[in-house]
Amino acid sequence: MRLMHLGDLHFGKMVNGFLMIEDQEFVLEQIKQYIQTYRPDAVMLAGDIYDRSVPPARAVALYNQFLKDLLIELKTPVLAIAGNHDGAELIDFGHELFEAAQYYVAGNFTKTIKKVRLQDDAGPVNFYLLPFADYAVVREALNHPEIKSLNDAMKAIMEVNPIDSTERNVLITHAFVVGGEAPEQSESEKKLVVGGKESVDATLLEHFDYVALGHLHRTQRVNSDKIRYSGSLLKYSFSEEHYHKSMTMIDLDAEGEISIELLPLKPRRDMRTITGKLDELLTLEDEGQEDYLRVILTDEGELLEPMAKLRQVYPNVMLLELERRFSEFKGSQLSASARQTKSTEELFADFYEHHRGESLHEAGKQVIEQTIKVMKGEC
Amino acid sequence: MRLMHLGDLHFGKMVNGFLMIEDQEFVLEQIKQYIQTYRPDAVMLAGDIYDRSVPPARAVALYNQFLKDLLIELKTPVLAIAGNHDGAELIDFGHELFEAAQYYVAGNFTKTIKKVRLQDDAGPVNFYLLPFADYAVVREALNHPEIKSLNDAMKAIMEVNPIDSTERNVLITHAFVVGGEAPEQSESEKKLVVGGKESVDATLLEHFDYVALGHLHRTQRVNSDKIRYSGSLLKYSFSEEHYHKSMTMIDLDAEGEISIELLPLKPRRDMRTITGKLDELLTLEDEGQEDYLRVILTDEGELLEPMAKLRQVYPNVMLLELERRFSEFKGSQLSASARQTKSTEELFADFYEHHRGESLHEAGKQVIEQTIKVMKGEC
Repeated sequence: MRLMHLGDLHFGKMVNGFLMIEDQEFVLEQIKQYIQTYRPDAVMLAGDIYDRSVPPARAVALYNQFLKDLLIELKTPVLAIAGNHDGAELIDFGHELFEAAQYYVAGNFTKTIKKVRLQDDAGPVNFYLLPFADYAVVREALNHPEIKSLNDAMKAIMEVNPIDSTERNVLITHAFVVGGEAPEQSESEKKLVVGGKESVDATLLEHFDYVALGHLHRTQRVNSDKIRYSGSLLKYSFSEEHYHKSMTMIDLDAEGEISIELLPLKPRRDMRTITGKLDELLTLEDEGQEDYLRVILTDEGELLEPMAKLRQVYPNVMLLELERRFSEFKGSQLSASARQTKSTEELFADFYEHHRGESLHEAGKQVIEQTIKVMKGEC
Repeated sequence: MRLMHLGDLHFGKMVNGFLMIEDQEFVLEQIKQYIQTYRPDAVMLAGDIYDRSVPPARAVALYNQFLKDLLIELKTPVLAIAGNHDGAELIDFGHELFEAAQYYVAGNFTKTIKKVRLQDDAGPVNFYLLPFADYAVVREALNHPEIKSLNDAMKAIMEVNPIDSTERNVLITHAFVVGGEAPEQSESEKKLVVGGKESVDATLLEHFDYVALGHLHRTQRVNSDKIRYSGSLLKYSFSEEHYHKSMTMIDLDAEGEISIELLPLKPRRDMRTITGKLDELLTLEDEGQEDYLRVILTDEGELLEPMAKLRQVYPNVMLLELERRFSEFKGSQLSASARQTKSTEELFADFYEHHRGESLHEAGKQVIEQTIKVMKGEC
């Protein structure tokens, strides 16, 4: 059986003020092409379908179109779950009715995990659709007061939902699963507690032939190739700048052995950082001028409307930073003795000079002196 | 063919601060009973399924359950459209996929109206699913600049979507359709312009064998029994206090002749007005103490925390009004000469006495005199 694994689609996401709908459409087109070429038996969506529990209308329309393309045009069953970003009720809407169209979806956590059986020549494959759930939700649903972490919750879920190991079994879930090493996280993943109460030990999931995970945005395996994050559809923050996005293709043989291929996804616009002096960047021969950029300027002096100038050349600048200024000036760079021997006024003058590239003028000194006096209660 | 017609469900609606979900569940239970008893061939939902374009999760869950009950448990096809309160994209979600489960739905207006063919022993019946659309939207979709009113829009839609009058045809739509007499409107219907640009002349729809309308909350026919509003599921404002809510059952014979029966819907709590003195109402033997009430108090003097006292007996008081006070005191009740001869101070003293049931005391008079001077710019 051939499977495709995607997750963290985040339809309708805004990144630094830019709506990603067209970027998402661009990548979905490639996914459709891959499906047409490789003809999987099913596509798995491992949560965070939408970016928000109440997604904008365009995001709903986008997902609608994607499902229609997969199910009607490409005749490929879809298995999906809700992630922590999704509204469980919205994802659940129509789930019994959709089964007739081979769209299998689980939004809310339920004691009995939704199980879908697909067949290939070698027999059945059981898919377990386990949506994101807080361990407190699991504790209540299972009436199991001993559950005090997500790991406890997963153990209890597995006890209530035993699998038949004589058949092939696949789990689709959305959680922070940790193996030997803590996985990398990016800023656009909702705050995750590394280790601790909010993570699941990968060894708990090793009896599955494949585990399709969502939650982390970097494509990665956890302990083995059998437990994987597909990663997000797109780079959703500059902390993901150096990740390569892909769709995971899994070939599951008759014995439950798998082989993996990562099918690269090319973004409509890359997300990357460029660094340099303003004038240099404005005249640079950059082939990705439409990319989503973080621009770090290394100029020393005053700059007049740098963002407006940059956007004439790079229309999709998302972030603008000044390298030398605040970023490099850290109190810790001063020796302890300097910090003790210099007055507050002198320390501020140092900071001003570093930041503006010129000494603090007399009028400024007076303002600072006066301000510091007021702060100290001296006048 | 036997059909059921509902509209203006407004799942998730808040009425005067009370969430109507449980009341809606209560009525849906009766609807299910009727369907079990009368076994219709289809249920038509004529728009305003939700109360808001972004409905709360509980409303989505309620509609999900209702659809599941109708389609899976009762095996009854559902034909639904979006109303002006609905988010068209949300209503449209999955519409192609749902057809396999016999849920036919149209959210967004499209040039070609969605047509669903159902069969009975006498042959096919064509259902046209025409969601709510502003005439400007129709003008653009049809590229027809001559459209300057909803009536123009409906004419153009009918031209683009001709019906075969040798077969039976049913229209489901959500609009303000007017016949010989202007229909009654209630406060909970979104502001409608009577006549004018926002209404459709019923004669335009007379070639259908039945027109299932949504938009107006009172059960009513427009010109003939063939064009009907089912009315809303519940009373959604006190202006609907004296309406009787029902589901409309239509029997359509082989020749396209119809007979109508209204199946009454009993609310979980009635919505009604009670009038009297506070003490009388608190000791009244009222069998509907749980009802949603507007209480009009006829007391003359001061009342201490009347709402708190009333809610001890009538927990679901929605509105509290004082009959004599502001409501009865109208400047027009004074003769024109009185209004001209009395000073502003004297007129206020009259008003105060009427409102409080006692004369304005000396300190109050001084405050008023001072205030009036300030307002006149005299000090």
